[in-house]
Amino acid sequence: MYLTQGLLRAVQRKPEATATVCGARRRTFRQMADRVARLAAVLRSLGVAADDRVAILSLNSDRYLEAYLAIWWAGGAANPVNIRWSAAEIAYSLDDCATQILIVDDAFADTAKTVGKTSKALKHLLYWGEAATPAGMSGLEALIDAAEPVANADRGGDDLAAVCYTGGTTGFPKGVMLSHANLISSALGVVGSGESIGPVCLHAAPMFHAADMLQFISALIVESTHVVIPAFEPLAAMRAIQDEGVTDTLIVPTMIQMLADHPQRDEFNLTSLQRLFYGASVISEAVLVRATRALPGTKFIQVYGMTELSPLITVLASCYHTEEGRRLGKHRSAGRASIMSEVRVVGPDDTEMPRGEVGEVVARGPQMMLGYWNKPEETAAATRGGWMHTGDGAYMDDEGFVYIVDRMKDMIVSGGENVYSAEVENAVASHPAVASCAVIGIPHDLYGEAVHAVVVLRAGALADDEEIRRHCRERIAGYKCPRSIEFSAALPMSGAGKILKRELRKSYWEGRERKV
Amino acid sequence: MYLTQGLLRAVQRKPEATATVCGARRRTFRQMADRVARLAAVLRSLGVAADDRVAILSLNSDRYLEAYLAIWWAGGAANPVNIRWSAAEIAYSLDDCATQILIVDDAFADTAKTVGKTSKALKHLLYWGEAATPAGMSGLEALIDAAEPVANADRGGDDLAAVCYTGGTTGFPKGVMLSHANLISSALGVVGSGESIGPVCLHAAPMFHAADMLQFISALIVESTHVVIPAFEPLAAMRAIQDEGVTDTLIVPTMIQMLADHPQRDEFNLTSLQRLFYGASVISEAVLVRATRALPGTKFIQVYGMTELSPLITVLASCYHTEEGRRLGKHRSAGRASIMSEVRVVGPDDTEMPRGEVGEVVARGPQMMLGYWNKPEETAAATRGGWMHTGDGAYMDDEGFVYIVDRMKDMIVSGGENVYSAEVENAVASHPAVASCAVIGIPHDLYGEAVHAVVVLRAGALADDEEIRRHCRERIAGYKCPRSIEFSAALPMSGAGKILKRELRKSYWEGRERKV
Repeated sequence: MYLTQGLLRAVQRKPEATATVCGARRRTFRQMADRVARLAAVLRSLGVAADDRVAILSLNSDRYLEAYLAIWWAGGAANPVNIRWSAAEIAYSLDDCATQILIVDDAFADTAKTVGKTSKALKHLLYWGEAATPAGMSGLEALIDAAEPVANADRGGDDLAAVCYTGGTTGFPKGVMLSHANLISSALGVVGSGESIGPVCLHAAPMFHAADMLQFISALIVESTHVVIPAFEPLAAMRAIQDEGVTDTLIVPTMIQMLADHPQRDEFNLTSLQRLFYGASVISEAVLVRATRALPGTKFIQVYGMTELSPLITVLASCYHTEEGRRLGKHRSAGRASIMSEVRVVGPDDTEMPRGEVGEVVARGPQMMLGYWNKPEETAAATRGGWMHTGDGAYMDDEGFVYIVDRMKDMIVSGGENVYSAEVENAVASHPAVASCAVIGIPHDLYGEAVHAVVVLRAGALADDEEIRRHCRERIAGYKCPRSIEFSAALPMSGAGKILKRELRKSYWEGRERKV
Repeated sequence: MYLTQGLLRAVQRKPEATATVCGARRRTFRQMADRVARLAAVLRSLGVAADDRVAILSLNSDRYLEAYLAIWWAGGAANPVNIRWSAAEIAYSLDDCATQILIVDDAFADTAKTVGKTSKALKHLLYWGEAATPAGMSGLEALIDAAEPVANADRGGDDLAAVCYTGGTTGFPKGVMLSHANLISSALGVVGSGESIGPVCLHAAPMFHAADMLQFISALIVESTHVVIPAFEPLAAMRAIQDEGVTDTLIVPTMIQMLADHPQRDEFNLTSLQRLFYGASVISEAVLVRATRALPGTKFIQVYGMTELSPLITVLASCYHTEEGRRLGKHRSAGRASIMSEVRVVGPDDTEMPRGEVGEVVARGPQMMLGYWNKPEETAAATRGGWMHTGDGAYMDDEGFVYIVDRMKDMIVSGGENVYSAEVENAVASHPAVASCAVIGIPHDLYGEAVHAVVVLRAGALADDEEIRRHCRERIAGYKCPRSIEFSAALPMSGAGKILKRELRKSYWEGRERKV
């Protein structure tokens, strides 16, 4: 079981079929395999041996996929860099796992230069773009042209295939080590989901993310054509779907909303799109209704997971997304264990919770990470008992559907009652004057924790704390309503656009220990 | 990745759904899991620990599936016994891998008694039938009733799950050691084949065989109901399909023919049958045409493999079996590599043959056996270079389809030309006077080997060797026609009904070495 196997199988049976489409560039599987074997030669010549990390910092591109395959062909492990990170964060992650090579495109050449100056580990900057090769970098396309193909390194199974950095919101990023078997097992959960995968997939979500890796590897297993746009943009996505007859894509709910609500949507023929996989969050009912109307021939499938599970844990099948299927209410869940996963909801002592009661989602299977790079204690804690602890609070219904309610660490225990910050935030945010908000637990002598909301008002809007509390009381139980409200000009955000609740909590909890 | 996982997933999400149907017996997944955990307790109490073999000698039954799952739950390895073998052959295979426990049904209780007297390893005979427990055996159903469920042994991945005896036609049987990951990987090749698997599968082919294990594990992964008939019999199969709404089954071409040509076929409603998987041999065009007419709503899918590959190697998709699909001629092949396999056709030096040229089929993947029990040399020879050597002669076309021409050892090299015994046998057997025949190579000073036919005539029919040679010359090239013909009253057969060509060759090759 190794990651370049799908490419080789495609070469065996349809070498002249289209492997990748990226702008005006189209390449066959034969051409892709040839380029991969020569790029692997370049990497080997730069010293890449078994397990060695090679980073990629790039917008989406056919070359990104070639880079993945070449790194695996050479025997190394990919380090796909979060394109939203600062140069300092990138340098930290490269140095953390001693990555000596960074492949960079035009969009990030300047960032890469800065990274090159900061990073201690980095030795080679390989520029893979359209302009003149920047000073201090080597032009990768020319190196590939000059290289002779090398043989596949014959790595696979439990061998390291990727180190993916994650967890910026909870402190220093951790390098999630994933093997060939991990990534393939996760993809098999999609391939074997009963939803099938069509012949043309569109990469629109960022390629560095585990969700797009999942789409890439699933599509590779079934030998689909990969259509690539540099980044999600609704017009570009719709044009690609129409022009290339895209059958499958994997995006996030926000992107679905942008497609469904786009004023020019009717100008495009999107009927080829058979399946729309989405992940990262549950889709709101309103968006789902609009999206299924906008794309009547498209099936919607939710995938839920985390990088540490390569990333697939559960699948919510298409049948629960249709108008009829929605009557079952399962579309409010994240679905059920994929065929490759085991999932449970457990209490603090790791015993299973009764159905319907909230606990932490844990999962295991052949897609569970090898561990965090150089962090044996964090690895042992996260995978205690052989189960990956996701940090997500959820309950499971009688049919095994998992309903995510909150991140565990954002759950508030107030007077012995569990309060899910996400539920309170939904109530607060539904007030017309509120632009955004975050709900946290702050210390309270009597209740242990009290519900506290940090609110950013819309420009020009006015509302006081009493008004917002009244609004909440009409919507949620009294014990869930914020006991205190703080108005702020902005919320602290991570590079990936997530609210940093630990920053908000800091001043309240200084010198105290918060039990999570 | 472990084999009881599918059962546990079914219990998690649909405990009251039907797991097994066998005659009048119906059991839910909850009941099945409970029985499995108690049967596992019985096995543990008899000393079964990690890797310990437990044999099953039985017609098809829901209990056979419970036995498999309980052996895995207990941490042991199943030894499914070939029901066509003699007591001496069975005792040999039990002793070979030191199997101490044999589970036996009514049909084989007498055989088991004899085995019990011969076998040195066997300690416990567990009777699982409807009559009074025979002397010297323990009644298993009563032991299960009395047992308390034990916890799952938590074995999986590369741990031993089965020792399957095979290869009776080539000398002493060899025990093929298969792991949990082997068997699951093979099944994933079906689950991920793009053909999907429906909710109700029928077990009609013998359960001891790797093909039915493949169906069992595939159906378990997707949580289908298992409908079981004791053995293939066309009326019983049609009744089960109709009464239980069977959607999927896996049988052999002879069985398909019996269904398609059955005089009472029209009395049954077989429209629920969505997919008919078949294996063990390519289907003849005539049978396929009749079968697709007889079952117009059923898709036909060929699976090709061998026990050593758990057993799946290639899949011939349903689209190549339809009237339109047959125009492509691919239905004469065994299909293409499953998503879990790599397949090549290689020459004697193990390098890949050009497309269209005959060599030996080799395959590898996570479904490749752990090895032959206690036979490191045979294991090393069969898996040299990391590829399982199937012993099947075949060529591959430009699209990766594999066409089996003969067993390698049955191929005849005469005057530098390859002659496929199967092709010559087809020509000889098409003579109306011929009941059966076998074609072998015998020593020839000039040509190395000469084509020799052993022919059994139909009762009352007459034909001399000249007549049969003339018949062949009209059908196949001259160098392929038998140079000599020998008439015989019967052909030597193995217990599994295969012609023992080595017996036929023996007298000709005594004292000489035949290059295979």
